[in-house]
Amino acid sequence: MTVDACVFCDIVAERGPAHVVYADDDVVAFLDRAPIARGHTLVVPRRHSSGLSDLDPRYGTPLLSAAQRVANALKGTEFGAHGVNLALNDGRAAMQTVFHTHVHVVPRRSGDKLTFAKGLLTRRAGDLETVAAQLRSTIAALP
Amino acid sequence: MTVDACVFCDIVAERGPAHVVYADDDVVAFLDRAPIARGHTLVVPRRHSSGLSDLDPRYGTPLLSAAQRVANALKGTEFGAHGVNLALNDGRAAMQTVFHTHVHVVPRRSGDKLTFAKGLLTRRAGDLETVAAQLRSTIAALP
Repeated sequence: MTVDACVFCDIVAERGPAHVVYADDDVVAFLDRAPIARGHTLVVPRRHSSGLSDLDPRYGTPLLSAAQRVANALKGTEFGAHGVNLALNDGRAAMQTVFHTHVHVVPRRSGDKLTFAKGLLTRRAGDLETVAAQLRSTIAALP
Repeated sequence: MTVDACVFCDIVAERGPAHVVYADDDVVAFLDRAPIARGHTLVVPRRHSSGLSDLDPRYGTPLLSAAQRVANALKGTEFGAHGVNLALNDGRAAMQTVFHTHVHVVPRRSGDKLTFAKGLLTRRAGDLETVAAQLRSTIAALP
């Protein structure tokens, strides 16, 4: 896949539709179109890489920092997460479906294991714009 | 939990037993004691933090860099992974069991979804020292 045909590069360049919740000079964070849980967010480096091997390791810190910001927002009263999973799926065998490197931020609640497992199988879009608006305002209000 | 009572701080300080496969000034990587798959490795920051919120984001780059190194080794002929999942589980609700922040590097093979799911439930130790020796030598031989 060339960078020109990458849906996440399109989002980064504001050419493609997305529910962006956070952006800075290095990364962009937007809602997963088929969330496992409400608030499920992806953080992507602005510069294209396809997977783990070709990701510049200097992206580690801005990716982590943005994921922390999103996670802290998801743990606030508005979203009520008790924890989060960060995941970077590298390769089709590891469930990667879009080949622009991305970090999943998945909010978790105590006792949601069955819902979580089911969500992995039945991912479907919810009311993303409402969720995005709440998440953006929560992130903006973080200390 | 205090740092004094942390099993991963013990490993970092070489006070506790572990099958270390990689170490540098910032992080230590060692085999998970109850692997989901052969070669399942944890990467931990040397400095104690309990979860995601209190992890210094500057650890992002050394954690990512070490995870890439382990992943590249797992994708070599010795281990034959077709992909890897990186995961940081934050909080009991998200399946965190040791409260020293750590990144899982889990090797995946095409079509292993059922084995992977089963592995999440039935994690058990294998012949860790043999695996560790192979992984160490593979990492040492990386370009």
